[in-house]
Amino acid sequence: MIIDRLYNNVKNKGPVCAGLDTQLGFLPGYLVEKSWTPGEKIFEFNRRIIDEIKEEVGCFKVQIACYEALGLDGMQAFAKTVAYARNAGCVVISDVKRGDIASTAKQYAQGHFTGDFETDIITVNAYMGEDAISPYYEYLNEREKGLFVLVKTSNPSGVDFQDRNVDGMTLYERMAEKVSAWGEGFIGESGFSSIGAVAGCTYPEEFERVRALMPHTFFLIPGYGAQGGTGEDVARFFKDGICGVVNSSRGLICAFKSKTEGKDYVKYVFDAVTAMKEDIAKSM
Amino acid sequence: MIIDRLYNNVKNKGPVCAGLDTQLGFLPGYLVEKSWTPGEKIFEFNRRIIDEIKEEVGCFKVQIACYEALGLDGMQAFAKTVAYARNAGCVVISDVKRGDIASTAKQYAQGHFTGDFETDIITVNAYMGEDAISPYYEYLNEREKGLFVLVKTSNPSGVDFQDRNVDGMTLYERMAEKVSAWGEGFIGESGFSSIGAVAGCTYPEEFERVRALMPHTFFLIPGYGAQGGTGEDVARFFKDGICGVVNSSRGLICAFKSKTEGKDYVKYVFDAVTAMKEDIAKSM
Repeated sequence: MIIDRLYNNVKNKGPVCAGLDTQLGFLPGYLVEKSWTPGEKIFEFNRRIIDEIKEEVGCFKVQIACYEALGLDGMQAFAKTVAYARNAGCVVISDVKRGDIASTAKQYAQGHFTGDFETDIITVNAYMGEDAISPYYEYLNEREKGLFVLVKTSNPSGVDFQDRNVDGMTLYERMAEKVSAWGEGFIGESGFSSIGAVAGCTYPEEFERVRALMPHTFFLIPGYGAQGGTGEDVARFFKDGICGVVNSSRGLICAFKSKTEGKDYVKYVFDAVTAMKEDIAKSM
Repeated sequence: MIIDRLYNNVKNKGPVCAGLDTQLGFLPGYLVEKSWTPGEKIFEFNRRIIDEIKEEVGCFKVQIACYEALGLDGMQAFAKTVAYARNAGCVVISDVKRGDIASTAKQYAQGHFTGDFETDIITVNAYMGEDAISPYYEYLNEREKGLFVLVKTSNPSGVDFQDRNVDGMTLYERMAEKVSAWGEGFIGESGFSSIGAVAGCTYPEEFERVRALMPHTFFLIPGYGAQGGTGEDVARFFKDGICGVVNSSRGLICAFKSKTEGKDYVKYVFDAVTAMKEDIAKSM
């Protein structure tokens, strides 16, 4: 199952998820100057990063919003980026946060688990309840796909709803209970389910409460670096063993900024990945 | 503002939102047989429907999942469908239910309010709080765009979270309060805000509670027909005046099924729109 592949990657290569949330403004000068389409430039930027760091990261996360922003040309760059990383043997999470139900969710499943945009794992939003999750079930076993469901997000206004009290527990804890229950049928050899959860690392105490409710859940953990999460926070999450992968996007793929405008940008990205791994390891 | 255009359309042409949630399996035989790409067939199917019913409906809703399902070819059909309907003078809602924050939401705004996929209104999911809504604000006034935020959905498992008790009110009522507050700054001449809400019509009592919390909110109302909502339900919502647009997708665009495999399919779609308008009107 995909969750076992991801778990093994994290064990062997470390818990870094490299976020390819690539925007045009991020590109080094030598790429900006090319007479290519924006999507072609972005794909080239990603391709060289994937080649450089694929042995150092547990997985890649590709934020589809950055590609939708550029229309059809951007969607082509999205498709090519996901396919390139998967063909290189990497696990890829498409960060699409789709949230729709029944036959509509089946269309999203078809779109992201087959065809041009085929990926390994997608992020999803369950505000609409299990109807927004169950249409993906058939893909989890049969095609070895996975989900990460939003539980506790790392942004300031996450509290607007997620922290509200729902019959003695926060909404995100209610969400955690449900996601854990939905995942019961999809637990792999690693002991984790192919239905994982997104839980931010800017709120460590909350993460611990969530984890206690979800013993078989693997986490996609945003919020490291730019959003305030530290290696110490991550080490705390992993004190009973590795239970997730930690995303960093700009902290990695923009690490070359103000240092180079040339092809050697990938060296700085590589070094940033190494530094992030050391930051986490030194606290563990 | 876009909400005034939509309100006037509904007043003049009736409250039907025609959902172009087009799937390959919906197409009449004469289109299936064409030697075109799937996306080209779907666009042709939509194009003829738009031409046929554009004077009869308040707006069109295009469900992006059905197009993402077909990869890049599908995304091209999506772009062409939205552009065609807008160029024909129609108001178009892209049903994308995107839900992400800050700079990521800005990317979605760029993607759906400019460029290849430019539309008038998008549906959004606010589980992540106001950070998932505020990045769109600049587009509401400056570019006359609009949002419909998910409040109460019409699917059975909508109750999983939306109906939970949050400090004495349901979660969907809490969502209603917030959406109403966010919309205060964007109220047009019609008295409605360009930040609207999605509230299903399979639960009429609930709709009334929601409406009471959101006096300036225009509604996108799913659930009519296939999902159990009736003309009587809709008439009840509109007893104090028109306050929304009622979506039907398959009930309209599949109305020709088992009747024809030819180009005259649009006649049946037209008749289904007329029947829906009459069903609502007779109860008002």
